[in-house]
Amino acid sequence: MPTDFNATRAAFDLPEGVIYLDGNSLGPLPRGAVDRLAQVARDEWGQHLIRAWNSAGWMDQPDMIGDRIARLIGADPGSVTVGDTLSVKVFQALSAALELAPDRKIILSDNGNFPSDLYMAQGLIGALDRGHRLVTPAPQEVEAHLSEDVAVLMLTEVDYRTGRRHDMARLTRRAQELGIVTVWDLAHSAGAVDLDIAGLGVDFAVGCTYKFLNGGPGAPGFIAVRPDLADRVRPSLSGWLGHEAPFAFDQDYRPAEGVRRLRVGTPPVLAMAALETALDVWDRVDMADLRDRSLALSSHFIDAVEAQCPDVTLATPRDPAARGSQVSFRHPQGYAVMQALIAEGVIGDFRAPDILRFGITPLFIDEGDLDRAAGILARILKDGSWDRPEFHRRVAVT
Amino acid sequence: MPTDFNATRAAFDLPEGVIYLDGNSLGPLPRGAVDRLAQVARDEWGQHLIRAWNSAGWMDQPDMIGDRIARLIGADPGSVTVGDTLSVKVFQALSAALELAPDRKIILSDNGNFPSDLYMAQGLIGALDRGHRLVTPAPQEVEAHLSEDVAVLMLTEVDYRTGRRHDMARLTRRAQELGIVTVWDLAHSAGAVDLDIAGLGVDFAVGCTYKFLNGGPGAPGFIAVRPDLADRVRPSLSGWLGHEAPFAFDQDYRPAEGVRRLRVGTPPVLAMAALETALDVWDRVDMADLRDRSLALSSHFIDAVEAQCPDVTLATPRDPAARGSQVSFRHPQGYAVMQALIAEGVIGDFRAPDILRFGITPLFIDEGDLDRAAGILARILKDGSWDRPEFHRRVAVT
Repeated sequence: MPTDFNATRAAFDLPEGVIYLDGNSLGPLPRGAVDRLAQVARDEWGQHLIRAWNSAGWMDQPDMIGDRIARLIGADPGSVTVGDTLSVKVFQALSAALELAPDRKIILSDNGNFPSDLYMAQGLIGALDRGHRLVTPAPQEVEAHLSEDVAVLMLTEVDYRTGRRHDMARLTRRAQELGIVTVWDLAHSAGAVDLDIAGLGVDFAVGCTYKFLNGGPGAPGFIAVRPDLADRVRPSLSGWLGHEAPFAFDQDYRPAEGVRRLRVGTPPVLAMAALETALDVWDRVDMADLRDRSLALSSHFIDAVEAQCPDVTLATPRDPAARGSQVSFRHPQGYAVMQALIAEGVIGDFRAPDILRFGITPLFIDEGDLDRAAGILARILKDGSWDRPEFHRRVAVT
Repeated sequence: MPTDFNATRAAFDLPEGVIYLDGNSLGPLPRGAVDRLAQVARDEWGQHLIRAWNSAGWMDQPDMIGDRIARLIGADPGSVTVGDTLSVKVFQALSAALELAPDRKIILSDNGNFPSDLYMAQGLIGALDRGHRLVTPAPQEVEAHLSEDVAVLMLTEVDYRTGRRHDMARLTRRAQELGIVTVWDLAHSAGAVDLDIAGLGVDFAVGCTYKFLNGGPGAPGFIAVRPDLADRVRPSLSGWLGHEAPFAFDQDYRPAEGVRRLRVGTPPVLAMAALETALDVWDRVDMADLRDRSLALSSHFIDAVEAQCPDVTLATPRDPAARGSQVSFRHPQGYAVMQALIAEGVIGDFRAPDILRFGITPLFIDEGDLDRAAGILARILKDGSWDRPEFHRRVAVT
């Protein structure tokens, strides 16, 4: 049955007068999430208290939710677990990957990667102090840097600024030929594009659930590990929830089987409740349909903006295969332009130095929204109303 | 003004017919938490969407909440931040501590420490592969093991099974004399006893917020660092939220000032909402009053049980100064006895091999509760009703 995008749209409760093109930064509130949160807090926490770890299945949530995410990223069932933050999951994947390639010293990434991934690599390299190096060529030069000196290829598939999408299949295959361990960050891929982690034989994949997956602010991260590799992984963050028998309270760590060893501490039950509601919507989505719809909407928006806004330049690749699910334009005064747009109810975001970023989220955005957004952008650029002092004033976030 | 424990009691909504003596494992639901969660989800997430990072102050939560916890543990304002899980916070403290003592190889803990702390140390030692050793004597032998070979003293102040409390002042002072970095785990101390982290000059303290602090299932951990040490800490988990300028999206990690560098990823906003409601109750509590009341209640319970239950043996130190805020008894069939108690509405928990554990939580427990609990325990032991097949059947958790 084809995905019903009218039904998914009805599953979200967006504010009146807002066109929300920032679901790639923080997904909107799914209807039902408030009630589910209240129910978990009031009934499970409030009434079952400590017993809810069993009676409400809290302890199994990380793996149950992991399985629901597995389908969305094309991972095998039982190969994904949920918890912590994406940055912590990057650390886990990267430290495990380096252990699997002990004689190599290079972590290859790119200079368009989300900074936190680079930071986590830098922190790990500093802590290990074994002469590892982080190499960050331009994205298009990554392939040329693949060699038998590279221990780990760590890339974010979709660029958070431009929406440019790496060729995951090609880079993963080439990495495999060279004995390089692969770590793919799916922050801007999960819920955005169709993926086949298992088919490609990706070693580690990590991601977050608060962007396209709509899990809520600060919703947990996830990590996937190739099933036939999982039992060779030695966890650096060897917490009790990743122990073979967490409630045996043994003195010595023995990793659990498979991806469960990449659990760390107590699961964030309340955050999981909101995420579950968000995944109820995703359970009804076919990822090939999503990708088709995302590309159609993206092209529609590119055409609409380019037809009306000569002052902006497309920053996202024109080739559909080379982009994720966002459309970015450059404007020399992008910051002020975005503030003016937001003041008009068109919420996207700005990324330095000059990028206007718009998330294309088929679950709750349609052509009408995009036409209206393009029209407002055109008007603001034409009448110069973006050029007011209040729109140039920088605030801290986000 | 002395703490009004009738008012704190009224701040919790406990199920009818339950005497909850497991607030040291998962604190109960504060009244107001459901509404606060719903409000954050519906209004902040749902209506403000991405803008709430500024408009609702989400980005400052880790430090604002950290300051509220700081008072409860006697830490300096600005020296505590909240996030991740306790296990991750242990890793951060321990890896930073080892960097501060590069020529020493021993992590000294004890064999009564909560296993996850030991596991995290083992994982870190394995990852670093620089010949560190974890030494775990019996708790009473820790002091004799302090020497100039020890890099880090990592202890949980209050034993999770027996409630035995280390002499933090004495051990910290002795460690300082020997140049040992101190890492105190306050999992069973924060909200349980009066603490003076700053006065003692503790280097790192970590803890969780879902036990005595009542922050909710899977509520985040916290970490405190001695202010004059903080800027010498090199974070191993160098995430973007610990960067000096997270939204500059620089390629290179530069740690933020002070404890903020021990932030890692995106803050768990929904979990923080529940925790804030719990801290509203704590804001009205004087910690010296809490300690007095805790010891009075603990002694009351010990007396009541010992007077009526000859079959159990006190596992908690009789000396008030040497215990935290729980009372544990041994019984050879402790597991079944605890299941029978739970079936009667007296919720404590069991810890292998033979410990019945009862959390003493003055915020919502009084003498009447403890008298009733002791009476039910006495009856169960006397009439042998604990010795039924269903009470011997082991379940996974907790």
